[in-house]
Amino acid sequence: MINDLFLRACKGEPVERTPVWIMRQAGRYLPEYQAVRSKIGFLTLCKTPELAAQLTLQPVDILGVDAAIIFSDILLVAEAFGMNLQLDETKGGPRFTKPIRSSSDIDALSVPDPRSKLRFVLDAIELTKRELQGRVPLIGFCGSPWTLAAYMVEGRGAKDFRRIKRMIFEEPAIVHKLLEKLAETLVIFIESQIAAGADAIQIFDTCGGLLSPDDYREFSLDYLWRVASRAKRNGTPLIVFSKGATALLEEIANIGVDVVGLDWTVDIGEARRRVGARVALQGNLDPTALFASPERIRQEVRTILRKYGKGSGHIFNLGHGILPDTPVSHARALVDAVKEESGAFHQ
Amino acid sequence: MINDLFLRACKGEPVERTPVWIMRQAGRYLPEYQAVRSKIGFLTLCKTPELAAQLTLQPVDILGVDAAIIFSDILLVAEAFGMNLQLDETKGGPRFTKPIRSSSDIDALSVPDPRSKLRFVLDAIELTKRELQGRVPLIGFCGSPWTLAAYMVEGRGAKDFRRIKRMIFEEPAIVHKLLEKLAETLVIFIESQIAAGADAIQIFDTCGGLLSPDDYREFSLDYLWRVASRAKRNGTPLIVFSKGATALLEEIANIGVDVVGLDWTVDIGEARRRVGARVALQGNLDPTALFASPERIRQEVRTILRKYGKGSGHIFNLGHGILPDTPVSHARALVDAVKEESGAFHQ
Repeated sequence: MINDLFLRACKGEPVERTPVWIMRQAGRYLPEYQAVRSKIGFLTLCKTPELAAQLTLQPVDILGVDAAIIFSDILLVAEAFGMNLQLDETKGGPRFTKPIRSSSDIDALSVPDPRSKLRFVLDAIELTKRELQGRVPLIGFCGSPWTLAAYMVEGRGAKDFRRIKRMIFEEPAIVHKLLEKLAETLVIFIESQIAAGADAIQIFDTCGGLLSPDDYREFSLDYLWRVASRAKRNGTPLIVFSKGATALLEEIANIGVDVVGLDWTVDIGEARRRVGARVALQGNLDPTALFASPERIRQEVRTILRKYGKGSGHIFNLGHGILPDTPVSHARALVDAVKEESGAFHQ
Repeated sequence: MINDLFLRACKGEPVERTPVWIMRQAGRYLPEYQAVRSKIGFLTLCKTPELAAQLTLQPVDILGVDAAIIFSDILLVAEAFGMNLQLDETKGGPRFTKPIRSSSDIDALSVPDPRSKLRFVLDAIELTKRELQGRVPLIGFCGSPWTLAAYMVEGRGAKDFRRIKRMIFEEPAIVHKLLEKLAETLVIFIESQIAAGADAIQIFDTCGGLLSPDDYREFSLDYLWRVASRAKRNGTPLIVFSKGATALLEEIANIGVDVVGLDWTVDIGEARRRVGARVALQGNLDPTALFASPERIRQEVRTILRKYGKGSGHIFNLGHGILPDTPVSHARALVDAVKEESGAFHQ
């Protein structure tokens, strides 16, 4: 690996400067992405390894980030379970035509073998790894059991995912049945992505913040722990990003992951004091801050670097995905600022 | 006051049992409300003191809650500033036909005197107080400067209120200009509600959780503090509910309020340990829990009472507004359970 800063930071090993990548760095804000996307549907992009690899590499070339993340979508796992997924980002986001509403809907799901049903992701990882030629590490990813279940039951993105929230109070047992099926599959999916060449894995628990602490432990954290503890990783770093769940940061840091992702609602310095050296931390600039001037972006970067403080174990990132209208020059200003400002914290 | 449990708990004074009320307790889940609402528009209900008083009293009679809260809406303050408000809960919630998008839009706002422009709220409070005949205290309320500004700039409810989020990074000065105008008006509005007879005031900062800690301090907390410190209250309790902002609980507890409202994502026992006896705490059952069986609701009530522990300073409530489809019998089960289970914690 020519640039392994990201992997070293995941392990808390010394680095010369803080590595940086951006959630959703391959996506809509890039004109180069839009040029491809204008001709080809989102699902086709995900399922065509050559195209997925091309999109994965774009931000590495354009922004100079320290890690690539495979172009894909967390909901493809639900599709592999036999659900009909419509993924059109221009029409209000992903949608399942027949959401899960009952125990028999869950029984009707066909538990997939990701090695065949999600072969295209693994092929895209293999191809991207060849094309990267060791320039930067490649991150594979998946959704958390809870977040996948929330989408599968709601049928689409929502503010508060009321349907699965009702279900955990009305019929908790069937939610557990769904979560167990998902966890089993995700273990194999993670192992397959690593076998295909992924250098790290991130689990996105975007819906973690919907739950009370007790319910978070029961319906999200316990399954994150199962996935983290069962997937054989042979040292491949595992990142978990549970948006909105920072109240339980200490517990998330204890499930056996290497890195915990932070959204922007927590002070990263305080988060570091809370978790100590148990895990590395990834984050956590408010994505909206990229609408500020490049000078102000640099200030914000300095503030976060200073809050984290000296030493390794920090991967710079936004606190959620980059927003569609973000100017590319501002994303580059972020990456440049991290590269130029962070050396002082590693002397 | 015949039942002053709520007021005593706000002050941390001894109570025989924990008082309980429910955010949005006068609203859509009640058939008695729907019967009125089916004939009369939402804004007309708010602006007709006799009707507002009638709706305010419904949950006192039907559920037996320990406090009434005046039937109104936080966005009426924005309307008083001259904005055109359309408030139709059946059509996706409130909407401003001409949202604020520039500094000149803010200059064009006419700072209102709430004593004339929001007279109908004050009249409704006076009338309700007479009709309550001291049965339970009456809560007046308003939105926080930040939350009102978020709606006025976005123009409607949203998942992430991106427009005002962009504005605080692109043009922070104009956001401050708007917040200052709002804070001035809210001080007078709070004082007027107290003069009209309100026994307590709650400030709803529903959009507090959108911000990073530093931005929360600058754009929400500082203005909450200004309002809390400037409004002359003569001992009338002030509650602040900043949804999603529990990371900064200690700081919220320090701005001079009597009660801090908690959403359901924090453990109320931990919250109590963090704030000590500085403030009382209000909350914090997940509103979705009211879809569980009455037996399960009672269990959840017991859990929260036990987490808070012995002694006064707890007002039972949901962690956000009651959901529209909630069965009334389940809301009553909540109130009954608090009344029956909480005595043991006050011996």
